[in-house]
Amino acid sequence: MSKMQLLHPLEHEDAEAVIIGGMVLDIHASPSIAANPGTTTPGKVYYVQGGVARNVAECMAKLGAKPYMISALGFDMAGNLLLEKWKSFGLSIEGILKDKDIDTPVVCNIFDVNGEVAAGVASVEAIEKYLTPDWISRFKSTLLSAPVLMVDANLSPPSLEASCRLAADAECPVWFEPVSVAKSRRISSIAEYVTFASPNEAELIAMADALLGSDEFRPLKGYDKKNNLSPASLFQLLKPAICLLLEKGIKVVLVTLGSSGVLLCSKGGPSSIQIPVDKTRRRGFGGELYRNVMKRFPPNSFLEHGRSSHFFALHLPAVPASVVRLTGAGDCLVGGTLTSICAGLDIIQSVSVGIAVAKATVEVAANVPSAFSLATIVDDAKCIYSSAKVLFHQSML
Amino acid sequence: MSKMQLLHPLEHEDAEAVIIGGMVLDIHASPSIAANPGTTTPGKVYYVQGGVARNVAECMAKLGAKPYMISALGFDMAGNLLLEKWKSFGLSIEGILKDKDIDTPVVCNIFDVNGEVAAGVASVEAIEKYLTPDWISRFKSTLLSAPVLMVDANLSPPSLEASCRLAADAECPVWFEPVSVAKSRRISSIAEYVTFASPNEAELIAMADALLGSDEFRPLKGYDKKNNLSPASLFQLLKPAICLLLEKGIKVVLVTLGSSGVLLCSKGGPSSIQIPVDKTRRRGFGGELYRNVMKRFPPNSFLEHGRSSHFFALHLPAVPASVVRLTGAGDCLVGGTLTSICAGLDIIQSVSVGIAVAKATVEVAANVPSAFSLATIVDDAKCIYSSAKVLFHQSML
Repeated sequence: MSKMQLLHPLEHEDAEAVIIGGMVLDIHASPSIAANPGTTTPGKVYYVQGGVARNVAECMAKLGAKPYMISALGFDMAGNLLLEKWKSFGLSIEGILKDKDIDTPVVCNIFDVNGEVAAGVASVEAIEKYLTPDWISRFKSTLLSAPVLMVDANLSPPSLEASCRLAADAECPVWFEPVSVAKSRRISSIAEYVTFASPNEAELIAMADALLGSDEFRPLKGYDKKNNLSPASLFQLLKPAICLLLEKGIKVVLVTLGSSGVLLCSKGGPSSIQIPVDKTRRRGFGGELYRNVMKRFPPNSFLEHGRSSHFFALHLPAVPASVVRLTGAGDCLVGGTLTSICAGLDIIQSVSVGIAVAKATVEVAANVPSAFSLATIVDDAKCIYSSAKVLFHQSML
Repeated sequence: MSKMQLLHPLEHEDAEAVIIGGMVLDIHASPSIAANPGTTTPGKVYYVQGGVARNVAECMAKLGAKPYMISALGFDMAGNLLLEKWKSFGLSIEGILKDKDIDTPVVCNIFDVNGEVAAGVASVEAIEKYLTPDWISRFKSTLLSAPVLMVDANLSPPSLEASCRLAADAECPVWFEPVSVAKSRRISSIAEYVTFASPNEAELIAMADALLGSDEFRPLKGYDKKNNLSPASLFQLLKPAICLLLEKGIKVVLVTLGSSGVLLCSKGGPSSIQIPVDKTRRRGFGGELYRNVMKRFPPNSFLEHGRSSHFFALHLPAVPASVVRLTGAGDCLVGGTLTSICAGLDIIQSVSVGIAVAKATVEVAANVPSAFSLATIVDDAKCIYSSAKVLFHQSML
């Protein structure tokens, strides 16, 4: 238990989300003049804290939560940086395995003058090697009080399975973040345990294929004009894959569409996937968020007609943003949604907040903004919530 | 004054070389599989302590000296790493400017599977911006007892000039390390102050052109078969440029030829450029080195026929090595030679030791080996010294 937590015994009694996955240092180098290939060019080098699980947890921390991070770091330069920053956020480091043999996960990218990756190397095998079922199982008791567990697909398949089984024993819902097309296929061994999954379109297709053991869904990727499609048309195209995920046991599929928003698809109404009140966190920012959202956009009528066992699909749009950099937006969408779920909001309210948090993220260069404005987030989230459209519910069949 | 020095008051009384220039972190990323351009590939990321001045000083420290480093670092991840390592070598950090506004110099290179640079970015402007004449002049008194000052051409021209003037006031000889072809031209404003310069062939040509304000010497670079030339033929080709450097005031020009060894060219005999005995360092490794070298290959007959005002040129060969990595070899050649000069050896003995130290360096992956064997260095140096050949002396004119 860190000192900071000892100073706030009341807050520590709040149940907190558990986040298992990668803490990664992104080293970004950008030349200041056009480079000749094969040479070293003058420019700038930036150190950016990354890793999907780390970004999600940092976002939650910036929203006032105190997520419990389970990860692995070395004692090298990158590990020291990530750990010191983690402590500075006031978060527990108990769950972070530190070992001198670990090469801290690092992604080194050199960009060209247009901002595209010219060359890049990812050294992230430590996550699979050291974040083992054995290490994760040490935190069984932490999961008992957790409102939700998030795993990112950087974990090895055995570690994903171990995490999910522990969560099932603790009756803790699991959020699966697919990380990349290649790693998203790791859903195949854990779909039955997963409550929430947040793929983009390409990850959705790969997950469906992995679950079916086929490549049936591949042709969908060929639609190169999909950016011009309406959310409703896109949903029709993606519906077979989404249905397969729901059939395989995932309760809520959130397909992220970038600037087109999010498709929220489920087999139950929004209230069927709410966190038990005794596990919610209504103190601090979480409490303020809960009270503000309940006042500005209480759970409403969207799916009155939907029964808890019925399939429904909702499109939540994004709000216009002054984009500085897109990195981190997807992770902050998850962080904002998880924070809201943990505060006791329903899934539609929560995703609305998540999209508002993602919007605030693309407006800064960092993966996670240094601070969020509750008022702006609630305003944007209300706007998103009010513009949500039901694309499908069972009675339309 | 660092704690370690306080613990060894006797050793601290030894005069020590002053080294001014860059401390740089090299971030090297190597893919483990062939990469598609424009993508991020799995691989490994290495953090290598570099910078010419830093490498030279670390090499001297590994040879038992305690060089006084004057440089500039930030409080960022790279700066912390370089500073902690520096402390671990037991070296003073007084001369290293630390400022939160400094972006610590970093070179980030991504290699291809053949070990060639695929893309690279150098962020080293802090050396010119923060290593100012004002900062350097604070160490005027340190220079008074220093047997030698080394400057690398990462310094801005005003800082190079300020360093040289301080050294002249302190009657301290200056060693100029050209760093790169582009930066080697900075010799133009300081040649009159420089006792030793250590260019490779391309830097030699650039320095001669810079001193003449011409591009007269460029054609020499066209000899693409120069690798097949004997040292004597190569010397004949390079002689006009070498002579120009000597005429402009540089007393000893060491042209490094990679695996072909070194051309040592001067206008005086070896004894004319020896350090005064009261500034030599004959305790510890320096003393052992001095005694061993004087026993195994005392200053001899090479240049008996050379008068102190006469031009002479000597070829010192390299010894065969099991090459692991070439980086750092040139810097360790300088570090070994400087350590020997500071121990009171003459320039021919010293360069022989320097080549032996460079040989030990190419046999490891790091820029500087973690330790040196005195016996091996002295054996190799004796072999080099014994194979040295006079290419030219004034009487041959």
